[in-house]
Amino acid sequence: DPKLKVFTCNANPKLAREIADHIGVQLGNSEAIRFSDGECQIKLNESVRGADVFVIQPTSAPVNEHLMELLVMVDALKRASAKSINVVIPYYGYARQDRKARARDPITAKLVANLIETAGAHRVITMDLHATQIQGFFDIPVDHLLGVPILGNYFSEKGLEDIVVVSPDHGGVTRARKLAERLEAPIAIIDKRRPEPNVAEVMNIVGNIDGKTAIIIDDIIDTAGTITLAANALKEAGARDVYACCTHPVLSGPAIERINNSVIRELVVTNTIPLCQEQMCEKIKVLSVAPIIGEAIIRVHEELSVSKLFD
Amino acid sequence: DPKLKVFTCNANPKLAREIADHIGVQLGNSEAIRFSDGECQIKLNESVRGADVFVIQPTSAPVNEHLMELLVMVDALKRASAKSINVVIPYYGYARQDRKARARDPITAKLVANLIETAGAHRVITMDLHATQIQGFFDIPVDHLLGVPILGNYFSEKGLEDIVVVSPDHGGVTRARKLAERLEAPIAIIDKRRPEPNVAEVMNIVGNIDGKTAIIIDDIIDTAGTITLAANALKEAGARDVYACCTHPVLSGPAIERINNSVIRELVVTNTIPLCQEQMCEKIKVLSVAPIIGEAIIRVHEELSVSKLFD
Ligand SMILES: Nc1ncnc2c1ncn2[C@@H]1O[C@H](COP(=O)(O)O)[C@@H](O)[C@H]1O
Ligand SMILES: Nc1ncnc2c1ncn2[C@@H]1O[C@H](COP(=O)(O)O)[C@@H](O)[C@H]1O
Repeated sequence: DPKLKVFTCNANPKLAREIADHIGVQLGNSEAIRFSDGECQIKLNESVRGADVFVIQPTSAPVNEHLMELLVMVDALKRASAKSINVVIPYYGYARQDRKARARDPITAKLVANLIETAGAHRVITMDLHATQIQGFFDIPVDHLLGVPILGNYFSEKGLEDIVVVSPDHGGVTRARKLAERLEAPIAIIDKRRPEPNVAEVMNIVGNIDGKTAIIIDDIIDTAGTITLAANALKEAGARDVYACCTHPVLSGPAIERINNSVIRELVVTNTIPLCQEQMCEKIKVLSVAPIIGEAIIRVHEELSVSKLFD
Repeated sequence: DPKLKVFTCNANPKLAREIADHIGVQLGNSEAIRFSDGECQIKLNESVRGADVFVIQPTSAPVNEHLMELLVMVDALKRASAKSINVVIPYYGYARQDRKARARDPITAKLVANLIETAGAHRVITMDLHATQIQGFFDIPVDHLLGVPILGNYFSEKGLEDIVVVSPDHGGVTRARKLAERLEAPIAIIDKRRPEPNVAEVMNIVGNIDGKTAIIIDDIIDTAGTITLAANALKEAGARDVYACCTHPVLSGPAIERINNSVIRELVVTNTIPLCQEQMCEKIKVLSVAPIIGEAIIRVHEELSVSKLFD
């Protein structure tokens, strides 16, 4: 039976260890280091010949460092005769550059897909892509996992009453509906509109939130502008309490300050992206995606082993 | 006649401006900026439709940032219908990772070549590759320019007497011979040997340097360990004076301190990599590669225009 091996670079070694533990394997022995001039080097300190290798590396900040580490790792695995190279990118950086929003824009999410394939990856496992179209940017299989079950379980167990799940924009309605189904709750939508050019946006709430416990859900929380404004609008419009959740806590710039100063009671996130010291705050609860990524890896490894029968 | 356009990202805008000036065109209007989370974005603020575009971007430190900017720029140019995309990489980062020095090493110089082609580049113009084999890593034309004429002219005009050109290792002999021919001088070679494992290297000088003015030449000076040890060895062995030169002043870590404390009288470099404030030191003289890169661009553009006749 071909060996299953799990490797990590520097983006989220803690998650990689949790995943390896879940599967019941030792984390592969490798290093991602830097030369004096900042060039990165990958050292594989054990054989990968004939193995099904899974590399855990979200392309979170510093995104270009983490992306390059991943590409160099894939190159090293390829040249070291790994049987299959499966890249696990729990958070897919550059996902918001997925279309030409303006003339002459690059489409960096597609460029990144091409780079990963060019380096030699055979399969991608990722979570909550900002746009599901990004699956189609790849010509190799993409397994797309969802954070909703994890977030939903947490809120279920919390035993909140009279919940309404809120999507902060029209693009997130499908996600909000999935969470609402799990919690057997209705949904509401925040409808942002600019009455005139150069006039501040108005937040119009579609749906009944009066006296209810609102849970706002998004895929990414970056500077936390959208989510904190939405929370305040919900509270002002009569919500009893406001929670927020997302899969990917990017939390850049003023995010933590905004969350601390907002009416949000609790922000629930996952560990696709590790929080640094300055991002830890009492309001933030982190749930682990290791079990669902671990299960996905086991499933893929079984498939790869079965398909060997037909080779 | 298709238009010639010159663009830059953030690695060396000063060199890009000098090159545009040499050619007699305005630098293209573009920006390479960062979002709050560190993702880079390229804005092309003018049309490139049907143009022969030259992007000036050495992949110097921070190498992963500069490489990604270049790749995203190429993606944007491709989608904006540039007729040809010519990437000018005066310093090619990761060039020292050009072979498997140890088992399971990646070959990152080749990976980078693949990434550049995948992004959509049609041609590469570069200078003094650490290994000329890297030309063969590309399946698109590579114009390989040399720094020796510029360095040679400078030393010729200086009017030094009784010169010997020194290669700091066996790999650099061809380069040293080219400089020696220009200066009508003999060469010497530093032959490093480790008498026994785990014993310090011995610097053995092959060639006559007694009472002569030695000019050490290398392609890259990084931490300056090799070059300063070589300079001291030459001085101890009887050289009257020691100069050093290279094309690519990487100058990382302890480089500046080592150069300041060494017997090197003057270090002559080019501006393929810009020096930052901390790297400026009285001993360092910077020569511009803008004229030779500018001429190469004019030649390539003429070729591209002529070939149009046969389209
Ligand atoms: N890293 C980023 N940070 C902030 N905005 C971004 C980032 N990447 C892309 N964008 C912009 O976000 C918009 C796409 O976001 P969305 O409408 O939510 O899909 C586009 O206008 C992009 O220019
Ligand atoms: N950025 C770098 N800084 C220092 N050493 C490097 C770098 N990149 C590669 N190397 C090492 O330098 C050696 C190749 O240099 P050379 O023998 O001069 O071609 C290999 O052992 C590499 O592992």
